[in-house]
Amino acid sequence: MPERIGKHTVNLQNKPYIVGYAAAVGKKESAGPLAEFFDKAYTDEFCGEKTFEKAETHLQKAAIETALKKAKLLKSDVQCAFAGDLLNQCIGSSFGMRDLKFPFAGLYGACSTMALSLAMSGIFVDSGAAENAVAAASSHFCSAERQYRMPLEYGGQRTPASQWTVTGAGCAIVSNKAKDTNSPRIEKAIIGAVRDLGITDPNNMGAAMAPAAAQTIAEFLIDTNTKPEDYDMILTGDLGSTGSNLLQKLIKTEQGFDISNVHKDCGIMIFDQKTQDVHSGGSGCGCSASVVCSYIFDKLKNKSLNKVLFVGTGALLSPTSSLQKESTPGIAHGVLLTSND
Amino acid sequence: MPERIGKHTVNLQNKPYIVGYAAAVGKKESAGPLAEFFDKAYTDEFCGEKTFEKAETHLQKAAIETALKKAKLLKSDVQCAFAGDLLNQCIGSSFGMRDLKFPFAGLYGACSTMALSLAMSGIFVDSGAAENAVAAASSHFCSAERQYRMPLEYGGQRTPASQWTVTGAGCAIVSNKAKDTNSPRIEKAIIGAVRDLGITDPNNMGAAMAPAAAQTIAEFLIDTNTKPEDYDMILTGDLGSTGSNLLQKLIKTEQGFDISNVHKDCGIMIFDQKTQDVHSGGSGCGCSASVVCSYIFDKLKNKSLNKVLFVGTGALLSPTSSLQKESTPGIAHGVLLTSND
Repeated sequence: MPERIGKHTVNLQNKPYIVGYAAAVGKKESAGPLAEFFDKAYTDEFCGEKTFEKAETHLQKAAIETALKKAKLLKSDVQCAFAGDLLNQCIGSSFGMRDLKFPFAGLYGACSTMALSLAMSGIFVDSGAAENAVAAASSHFCSAERQYRMPLEYGGQRTPASQWTVTGAGCAIVSNKAKDTNSPRIEKAIIGAVRDLGITDPNNMGAAMAPAAAQTIAEFLIDTNTKPEDYDMILTGDLGSTGSNLLQKLIKTEQGFDISNVHKDCGIMIFDQKTQDVHSGGSGCGCSASVVCSYIFDKLKNKSLNKVLFVGTGALLSPTSSLQKESTPGIAHGVLLTSND
Repeated sequence: MPERIGKHTVNLQNKPYIVGYAAAVGKKESAGPLAEFFDKAYTDEFCGEKTFEKAETHLQKAAIETALKKAKLLKSDVQCAFAGDLLNQCIGSSFGMRDLKFPFAGLYGACSTMALSLAMSGIFVDSGAAENAVAAASSHFCSAERQYRMPLEYGGQRTPASQWTVTGAGCAIVSNKAKDTNSPRIEKAIIGAVRDLGITDPNNMGAAMAPAAAQTIAEFLIDTNTKPEDYDMILTGDLGSTGSNLLQKLIKTEQGFDISNVHKDCGIMIFDQKTQDVHSGGSGCGCSASVVCSYIFDKLKNKSLNKVLFVGTGALLSPTSSLQKESTPGIAHGVLLTSND
């Protein structure tokens, strides 16, 4: 049953289990450093579908169906699915949910969605509102580029701080019963507040999201009375190298926390920055979704990692808000993921 | 503490309280039959802002701030806000949340969002994950028209089944403590699944949403072993007259439930269909949000209504999905709202 600790954090007393998880990614991601950890890789950017948007739905469905299979659960065992994506009206998720037929609570947290869906699933399962919940998120380079920026055919030049939207999806099945003694767990959750330090460059999302990440991480550490070195990893979603540097500086200056020894970022991990030409790193809901639902849960399962504070980060802009000269609000949600000791 | 009853429904054993609520609407809404129940009415479609999108944010913030004031709570008392809207990347909500500084879980349920935000708030508060939660949703005729359909200046003709997007927002403050003996309560929640019977006309949202409403209402009645006549009102979000007729027929044919004596629809209630030229009725997240967070809660408070099953309905399309020849999936989420007896 959830209980509040400190001002912002929710303690999940039953520590729900991750009984299945999967990641489905595109070609570039499956040529990166985490290739061996992904469940499915598509070399065709359409994933056999007719449009990029349908391809994104395909990826999300593939991740969910694979995770369910690995959990040895049926679709009818799922009592609530939390999912979201970056597409207008979240069609990446809702068209997949049409076929999967789960009770579906749509989320919008931009690139923080995987952390938000894990937090919601954890709270639902811990409280008894669901026995099994699905947490999922996706993004697709081609559907995101043409929606947020320019038609791909335009071939616009990318700025140094820009990030590469990950083509990928991740899904975790959260349950009140362990599948085996190695099922990772969700121990705590924190829903973040919006923070905006006035970044107006829509090509520098890392800088827009770093302040929210600093705020959520600091709140979590204060609420739980812990220090960065108490964690094997403090993992941000997709700050990329620009945003990661800013986060480390900001949280040190503002709160005195030095996270540099334990901080990793999914946006830096998913691509090889030397050879894959992604500038500041990967981004998109699918970035942290595919890294957490593969590499991270694998390491928690085999206990080479035991305590990971995963903080998903989102930039809550739209092309319209940028054109209307708004700055970019950031948000960051967190979950404490642990090995089953 | 939430407990599952039947296959789809969650029983909120502590029956969280609605300790404050408010609705802020536009000019047309404040000239309609429910005018006297709204807290704020704006005659200027910009609400003093520079753009329609900022006007929508203004409306949502106004509803939230008024509801908090009526609840005699501070911003810092709110531990989680659930909100959403129809705009791309949900900017109607996120820019408001930037100023309000609540922990914020963004939702996307199209026009079902008010029911989803009430369900999530109810489950959070009942479980102990929050003491006070905000549930809010908004829409704006002008921001929706230009995003989903045509520039307003184009003056396109509207089809008979089309609906008029409500300019309005509603907010309810859900709490584990009653404000007084009249605080309405949330007793049960149901998260709906997507249902798509193949409607492809993007101007007939009522028909696209009716099948999902029929499914969620039937599931709720079966789970709780109740009949339509056990409710003072079964209230749908924004089916309008076309969708309402379809719902009543569909649920009778498919499940044998005759809801015609107790069924009302916010989309029909909010405008005068004879004089206000809205064709099939009102729609948009702000439609059910502003009706529930004014008229309905007022009636539950003064006990002229005691048991209202509110089922918000959403059409999960985007302009892109329609252009890609997809049909329109519908979704419906429900909450059982009761007077404090």
